[in-house]
Amino acid sequence: MLKEGLKLVISGPSGSGKGTIVKELIKSENFKLSVSATTRAPREGEKNGVHYFFKSREAFEKMIVEGELLEYAAFCENYYGTPKVFIEECVRAGKDIILEIEVQGAKQIKAIYPDAIFIFVVPPTLKELEKRLVGRNTETKEVIQKRLERAKEELSLYKEYDYIIINDNIEQAAKYIQEIVRIEKLKSHRFQEAISTLVNNQGGI
Amino acid sequence: MLKEGLKLVISGPSGSGKGTIVKELIKSENFKLSVSATTRAPREGEKNGVHYFFKSREAFEKMIVEGELLEYAAFCENYYGTPKVFIEECVRAGKDIILEIEVQGAKQIKAIYPDAIFIFVVPPTLKELEKRLVGRNTETKEVIQKRLERAKEELSLYKEYDYIIINDNIEQAAKYIQEIVRIEKLKSHRFQEAISTLVNNQGGI
Repeated sequence: MLKEGLKLVISGPSGSGKGTIVKELIKSENFKLSVSATTRAPREGEKNGVHYFFKSREAFEKMIVEGELLEYAAFCENYYGTPKVFIEECVRAGKDIILEIEVQGAKQIKAIYPDAIFIFVVPPTLKELEKRLVGRNTETKEVIQKRLERAKEELSLYKEYDYIIINDNIEQAAKYIQEIVRIEKLKSHRFQEAISTLVNNQGGI
Repeated sequence: MLKEGLKLVISGPSGSGKGTIVKELIKSENFKLSVSATTRAPREGEKNGVHYFFKSREAFEKMIVEGELLEYAAFCENYYGTPKVFIEECVRAGKDIILEIEVQGAKQIKAIYPDAIFIFVVPPTLKELEKRLVGRNTETKEVIQKRLERAKEELSLYKEYDYIIINDNIEQAAKYIQEIVRIEKLKSHRFQEAISTLVNNQGGI
């Protein structure tokens, strides 16, 4: 039964730790990470279809025109986008696919995949968020202050999500997401076929 | 945060094993079982407020008139019913309360408690259901046949429930229900206060 995989949108402010949680999750074979398409050249060791789908500018623009991308953006003169076909093939193959998305992009995805599960990763405190941003050692004080302000704004969008994960422990956060997936698969709308088999053929679920 | 407990309605056809699952669940202190009110006399060892709330006929009829019962029925010249106040006190005290209800009664409860979680316990096969009903050794073949027919009808009501639990293993079924409770508490609508604390006071969630 329950053949279709789930689409999991994992989002949260910068510094919430969503990327680390995703890395933890994809250690399990049940999860697949959505692979982006890009027009930039492959770097050493990068494999087509694993790290990115590498496309020519013409091929990428054709994907845009034909509505094959869930979302896309231009960055440093290259395109980056999320091909729908990869997601949909994974789901049909029964894999749960993870889309790690910035807060601003999540709404766009809800319009296209209303059946996706939206998970919002939240830091335990703003102090902790600040600590993580400072710890990265990559941004100036000013940038960090801006990110904190933006995080506050983004946090107020929590209602757009189905579930909230307070990330004070990566393993626990990943465990919660695994449970969400298990429990979402017990939702009654997924049992139409199973119940009808049970009732009509006296077969097993 | 997350102070309020959940109301769990556990239902399923006769022989689905819902009663055994409930017994397994209430071994945990987090769960409280809803206590019914009745006009019948206490049997030896039965304690008021534990096994039943023992009421006079007048007191029970007053509860009916004043809308204090979630549902009630008369059986062998006595009344049996579910007092709302007990459920609501438990929930306010942060306990998750279990209502074990026949399939026909569950709909009635949804109208009063739309925020309750509705769980439908289902046998793995009709053959297994039959085996369990026969194993009880309390009913005639005819009664068992009627129960099977009724189970088929009841199974077709699965869509009225939030979650389906296939009961081929009591411990696993109870574990799923515990996970449902844990995951339901991560639903975003329960985080209003927590997020506002996080954003406004820089406090912890």
